[in-house]
Amino acid sequence: MTKNTTSRRQLLKAGLAGAGVAAAAPAARAQDFVTPSMLTPGKPFSGYGMPASYEAGVKRLVGTPGISPGTGSSRTPLEMLEGIITPSGLHYERHHNGVPDIDPANHRLVVHGLVNKPLEFTMDALMRYPRVSRIHFMECGGNSGGNSGPNPPQLTAGGIHGLLSCSEWTAVELGPLLDEAGIKPEGKWLIAESADAANISRSIPLAAAKEQALLVLFQNGERLRPEQGYPLRFIMPGWEGNLNIKWVHRLKVTNLPGMTKDETSKYSMLQADGKARQFNLVLPVKSVITRPSGQMTMQGAGFYEISGVAWSGHGRITKLEVSTDGGATWTNADMPGPVLPKALTRFRLPWQWNGQAATIMSRATDEMGNIQPTHAEWVKAFAPGQAYQNNGIQCWAIGADNSVKNTYA
Amino acid sequence: MTKNTTSRRQLLKAGLAGAGVAAAAPAARAQDFVTPSMLTPGKPFSGYGMPASYEAGVKRLVGTPGISPGTGSSRTPLEMLEGIITPSGLHYERHHNGVPDIDPANHRLVVHGLVNKPLEFTMDALMRYPRVSRIHFMECGGNSGGNSGPNPPQLTAGGIHGLLSCSEWTAVELGPLLDEAGIKPEGKWLIAESADAANISRSIPLAAAKEQALLVLFQNGERLRPEQGYPLRFIMPGWEGNLNIKWVHRLKVTNLPGMTKDETSKYSMLQADGKARQFNLVLPVKSVITRPSGQMTMQGAGFYEISGVAWSGHGRITKLEVSTDGGATWTNADMPGPVLPKALTRFRLPWQWNGQAATIMSRATDEMGNIQPTHAEWVKAFAPGQAYQNNGIQCWAIGADNSVKNTYA
Repeated sequence: MTKNTTSRRQLLKAGLAGAGVAAAAPAARAQDFVTPSMLTPGKPFSGYGMPASYEAGVKRLVGTPGISPGTGSSRTPLEMLEGIITPSGLHYERHHNGVPDIDPANHRLVVHGLVNKPLEFTMDALMRYPRVSRIHFMECGGNSGGNSGPNPPQLTAGGIHGLLSCSEWTAVELGPLLDEAGIKPEGKWLIAESADAANISRSIPLAAAKEQALLVLFQNGERLRPEQGYPLRFIMPGWEGNLNIKWVHRLKVTNLPGMTKDETSKYSMLQADGKARQFNLVLPVKSVITRPSGQMTMQGAGFYEISGVAWSGHGRITKLEVSTDGGATWTNADMPGPVLPKALTRFRLPWQWNGQAATIMSRATDEMGNIQPTHAEWVKAFAPGQAYQNNGIQCWAIGADNSVKNTYA
Repeated sequence: MTKNTTSRRQLLKAGLAGAGVAAAAPAARAQDFVTPSMLTPGKPFSGYGMPASYEAGVKRLVGTPGISPGTGSSRTPLEMLEGIITPSGLHYERHHNGVPDIDPANHRLVVHGLVNKPLEFTMDALMRYPRVSRIHFMECGGNSGGNSGPNPPQLTAGGIHGLLSCSEWTAVELGPLLDEAGIKPEGKWLIAESADAANISRSIPLAAAKEQALLVLFQNGERLRPEQGYPLRFIMPGWEGNLNIKWVHRLKVTNLPGMTKDETSKYSMLQADGKARQFNLVLPVKSVITRPSGQMTMQGAGFYEISGVAWSGHGRITKLEVSTDGGATWTNADMPGPVLPKALTRFRLPWQWNGQAATIMSRATDEMGNIQPTHAEWVKAFAPGQAYQNNGIQCWAIGADNSVKNTYA
């Protein structure tokens, strides 16, 4: 434990009271105070609720569209959120030709290619299969790509890392469906295709798909949202977002990868040595401090809870260290749980800020022993401009002027 | 394991294919099929997403208002949902005078009464404290009360048991705030008051509140919803819904319970012997099969996954048994997790239905050893008409005509 962090108990006994966040209660409020809301009947019941009007600013960060109105992304405002579940309305979007409007009554999933018996499933048929429910993160392979440029972008945590969300997915497992179709011996890959106007298609090693792939029907308790692939999404938990095919309608068993436009023109990682990592599909261990974070304003010296999220495509997070002195010393943060495999894990650490310039950062370790590299280490491994799967440690520079800025070290 | 249930693996090898839920894929669909959604660019990005238009029927069951438009409840449609998280838009409501519109900038929490130093907190001040995130169920004390009448109501699972939801709550712990105020030796109870027009107030034993109470700021990642108490809710995880004071604005330390209207005219349980259970605050162990469930139509003999949720105010669910023969024999269902204390726990069991009349039911056990009573046992313990905390086993009668009906045995 470093000298500028203290235990929660200590802070609650001394620091918080010292920070003056509570005021003495006026006698009127303690005794007979009646608020305006107590004098008027409230609003009636509703079929489907929405956030408070005062929270209208909590929304996805919609980027400038690319070559068409439906090409681009919107990001989850991570710094405004808490816990590990992302509300479905704020789950990040990455579309290549917008969000299709698909009537589930007309949608079909076809399993074909190197199978003994090609199969076609209605959504009602899929609903009959046994289901599994699991909490998993979803992250775009291009998330945090802004940190691959020469200068740190001055954005919020969500603006930099918000192609990241986490939901409870309820799904049918793909494995039994493949068994039902019967894989021919030469079948080694699976090509998953979307039914949107971009026809995204990605190749997955068949053995992994058979073991891990889910056909998602529900998100956070209710049916999957349109922006996440309604009525059906193919997901490989912990693998990069793009191959988690939304609006999935065909799965083809092949002997070789498809070399589709979505895995050759994109999502390959050119290394510093001139070689490329292709089919580099599992997302690396990563974390980000969301509070305090970029563009926030500190409120002077005193108590702060440092909090954020960590995740890994390889399994559970086993350690989360925080430094408040630019990486000189590190303290293990609390991970009060649930700590689930391939899910966001919330971490927390009490911090007494002395009001002077400080650089804070977090470093995650997963159950496979992977540790986040520094920004410099990550940049050094890849060719200039390579922006996929950037898991370099995020540093926030806190200024004596109460500013919080993105910094590379 | 009883003779009419089989393992998942067996069903996947034999039962499902036999059930004929998959059809052979037409060649056109397997090769070059293009759906209408592939020919039109989709909808653009949005700041806050909503469910698909095809799911408009998935909404809260709004009951007939009572003495005023804001008096009554709306229920979570449990049978349409999956997993353990309830989408915030579908969290049940129980209001006594509607949903107040409270500007968080003007809202205050006052801690007063038998304290050394009365305190007042703005919402911004509370945001400075350390936070905890936990997944907990919320249930109205009057949930399932319909099953206390002489005839089983013919409703859906949500219609009977839908005053039940589960969220990831992020909160400030009350304990440290009470420490900060300083409890006087004679302080033994805490009275929590709401800032709506019903001014709900309930008395909580102080020792329990100090240990367990949370002041909730976030629900499922985003700020608390208005219907659940925005901007601040007092919750005692696992305790009956009514005392989890929404829109909380005052907490008074007292030496005796307040005997408020909300804990004397209501929420006391009159027993068969003429004595009443008062301040019977922790919710009992309970479960309900949501699929198949009341008002559904079976699709003939074949494979079904029996699934539902279990919960207990006393801690974790340790066992969930299912009977498909009216209680003669029982099989342990899968609880694939996460199995969290005072949270909904999803259970699943594969079932091969032979198409004949069958009564299915679930029985939960919690970590304190509490087991759900039968309907008859529960009814026998209380006076006629007593409808609070009914945790009797829910039975569904499946007919050879494919109907699913509520039955008491």
